[in-house]
Amino acid sequence: MKLNATDPQTIVALSTPQGEGAIGVVRLSGANAFAIADQIFKGKQKIVEQATHTLQFGKMADEGQFIDEVVVAVFKGPRSYTGEDVVEISSHGSPYILRKVVECCLAKGAEPAKPGEFTMRAFLNGKLDLSQAESVADIIASENKAQHDLALQQMRGGYSDSIAALRNELIEFAALIELELDFSEEDVEFANREKFQVLIQKLRSKVAALIQSFALGNVLKNGIPVAIVGEPNVGKSTLLNSLLQEEKAIVSNIAGTTRDFIEDTITIDGILFRFIDTAGIRETNDQLEAIGIDRSFQKMKSAKMILFMADIENDYQNIVAEFKKLPFTPEQEVIILLNKSDKVVDCNAYDIEEAISTLTGRSALEISAYQGRNMDTLKEMLVKVVLKEKMQYQGQIVTNARHLAALKDTMKHLDQIERGLHENISGEFLSIDIKMALHSLGQITGAIEMDKDILGTIFGKFCIGK
Amino acid sequence: MKLNATDPQTIVALSTPQGEGAIGVVRLSGANAFAIADQIFKGKQKIVEQATHTLQFGKMADEGQFIDEVVVAVFKGPRSYTGEDVVEISSHGSPYILRKVVECCLAKGAEPAKPGEFTMRAFLNGKLDLSQAESVADIIASENKAQHDLALQQMRGGYSDSIAALRNELIEFAALIELELDFSEEDVEFANREKFQVLIQKLRSKVAALIQSFALGNVLKNGIPVAIVGEPNVGKSTLLNSLLQEEKAIVSNIAGTTRDFIEDTITIDGILFRFIDTAGIRETNDQLEAIGIDRSFQKMKSAKMILFMADIENDYQNIVAEFKKLPFTPEQEVIILLNKSDKVVDCNAYDIEEAISTLTGRSALEISAYQGRNMDTLKEMLVKVVLKEKMQYQGQIVTNARHLAALKDTMKHLDQIERGLHENISGEFLSIDIKMALHSLGQITGAIEMDKDILGTIFGKFCIGK
Repeated sequence: MKLNATDPQTIVALSTPQGEGAIGVVRLSGANAFAIADQIFKGKQKIVEQATHTLQFGKMADEGQFIDEVVVAVFKGPRSYTGEDVVEISSHGSPYILRKVVECCLAKGAEPAKPGEFTMRAFLNGKLDLSQAESVADIIASENKAQHDLALQQMRGGYSDSIAALRNELIEFAALIELELDFSEEDVEFANREKFQVLIQKLRSKVAALIQSFALGNVLKNGIPVAIVGEPNVGKSTLLNSLLQEEKAIVSNIAGTTRDFIEDTITIDGILFRFIDTAGIRETNDQLEAIGIDRSFQKMKSAKMILFMADIENDYQNIVAEFKKLPFTPEQEVIILLNKSDKVVDCNAYDIEEAISTLTGRSALEISAYQGRNMDTLKEMLVKVVLKEKMQYQGQIVTNARHLAALKDTMKHLDQIERGLHENISGEFLSIDIKMALHSLGQITGAIEMDKDILGTIFGKFCIGK
Repeated sequence: MKLNATDPQTIVALSTPQGEGAIGVVRLSGANAFAIADQIFKGKQKIVEQATHTLQFGKMADEGQFIDEVVVAVFKGPRSYTGEDVVEISSHGSPYILRKVVECCLAKGAEPAKPGEFTMRAFLNGKLDLSQAESVADIIASENKAQHDLALQQMRGGYSDSIAALRNELIEFAALIELELDFSEEDVEFANREKFQVLIQKLRSKVAALIQSFALGNVLKNGIPVAIVGEPNVGKSTLLNSLLQEEKAIVSNIAGTTRDFIEDTITIDGILFRFIDTAGIRETNDQLEAIGIDRSFQKMKSAKMILFMADIENDYQNIVAEFKKLPFTPEQEVIILLNKSDKVVDCNAYDIEEAISTLTGRSALEISAYQGRNMDTLKEMLVKVVLKEKMQYQGQIVTNARHLAALKDTMKHLDQIERGLHENISGEFLSIDIKMALHSLGQITGAIEMDKDILGTIFGKFCIGK
């Protein structure tokens, strides 16, 4: 770390969510954390004399006025979250008490922590690299398994480890080329250009994969968009309700989860799907209806998957004809759902399913949204598509827009370097491009000197208390 | 405690508020708390081997699948909140992670904690008496100093100590009277009737004071109702805004605080006031207006204090005449506010203030709500009224409706005993009344055997996790 990590200020904030709860935790971090806490806490022992990683029960008072019975947890730096001395005060989770505890710490000289300041200090003290620190905010915001896994992968090193490794190799080459420049009059080549070419190739393919993974990372984070296309009355909302049914218990467990009336989000096997109900699509002379259909097409374009829903009782050739009118892109996964299969005999349902699948070259599935028939198969099909794609990135998926920008910058410089090598440009110019690539890559992990303002922006997105 | 305190089940719940936060805490309590936690936590040391009151950093995993990095706090019974073995798991405050941690504990054999079950166990294990345990819910819900102080007084013993002391004296007498009954054929009197009379008097006055204190306790808890009476345009909303102004920063700090458009609550010196804006009051033939005025009278009746507001530019004799038409009860504190004093010269304002005060026999105060003039004096006057009343109960104020019911029951039995003593009834009947009084008093502190259902109702009002 190049930044001065010894900030003299001791910071304080409420670290648990606002609101009433059994417990609330106020966190103090900094050189004076123990001294400040000792002025408002009375236990058997002084906090400053307490061993690290121990708990003490006692009384919190403001100038002699009793506030609450609390438990203080002591973590001595560097063995703490921030790397500094940390005190965590657990009191009853009353808004009044928690406000009072924070106020008392402020009165004794602590500063209110800015959003993400605890984690920023952890980064400045070398407890986490920048990419890991950023993932902490994602971990906190994660509401399902896929989001959690993505954030976790990043926090545990994830791609920042492999980026750091490649970056180190690049640094070695940069050093060799610098050496060449020092001996420029002797016309030597310390840096093997062929080996360098191989490294740049390796870097380019790694960076390209990460850039590509962002599209998936982004939808995993915000929900895989799935468009449901089909005539009105074909059973679209019955399908959504049927999919939603089993998950409802889980959904309602999450505070603040609301159901959007146009887009329904459903978590299946820990993956968030965002179902977009589109208007019926058919040829029309009605201008207003045409606008609606146009919008449906737009929505379809933004979807990762498309469920084309039809009534199995319709003539299957009509269904195929309707289907062929739809504008799919080759990247979109399409599943044809033949609904209301409870209204036809089983063997007919299978026959139609097979015929349509053959004629369209797409997966077709007979379902009964009403009876919940084949819902499990449909869920499996949805999840499989995501997992298949996830596999190809070997778990290294970029979800952070700042990282994406840095990766794209890196790619630009790598292109430049490759062109330079191809055109055999002088080491001097090569050196400049390498430095720029190193700088772009370094922005992801914070290996380079980071601007205070940039750090402020990054950590400003955190909640206070983290 | 008479109830079986050794509940074999280990319970688990999220103890911090729902929502995203830096930290979330899941609490496990019971004989298997350590064993359950050890199955999902991997640190340097097994939790079961960890010393009490220590913290350990490690990894939480579900069947080998990493969930989060956590810190576990270990409290060995009886040195814990519940008196049982307790583990508190602090993880990142993500809804997903916290749900997962609770789910893992359930999978390993813990039971989901019912609302207030941790505190109920603390009561059953003799860590708190019933009245103290009940105050925990009030402490958590407290949003200002007055509410907090009331709850705290109760948690720290408060009136339950003095009730317990008086109850013990009553028990002694009961024992002596029982003895008399055993020797009934010998016609002896072990229990001195005169001393008993004194004790009953002491009890009666104590219980009466507590019953009386409930009215104050109730308004302190829910806000002192203050009716603002006056013609339209006299500046009522300007006054509310002016009072609210300085407090706004504090109000907006509390999550979920909303301003009611009809009743404004304002915290002054830690005391919550509930301002009720009433319609203008004047004689009318309009039926609709008459209904409005009737409602204003009703609201005035329920108020503890009344602010009568008038325009200082009006003729002071008219103001006095208007004032005299209002129906106040003798218990109501009335302050006459002469608004818009910025529009008259100072010496005039003082003169009018004095004249009106003399003519009405009530406190009058010239103010300028618009300029904020004399707002501090008004606040002092409001607070003083409450503090004066609070003093008379020496801090022993009942806020709990269940306690009030028990106190009223006790009073009924004490009346019965006194009448019995007066009429010199037999020890047999006296004994029955004493037992009933003991039972009623015992309900407050839980000294008597409590019905499981009653305990369930009492603790059912708590939040889960406490």
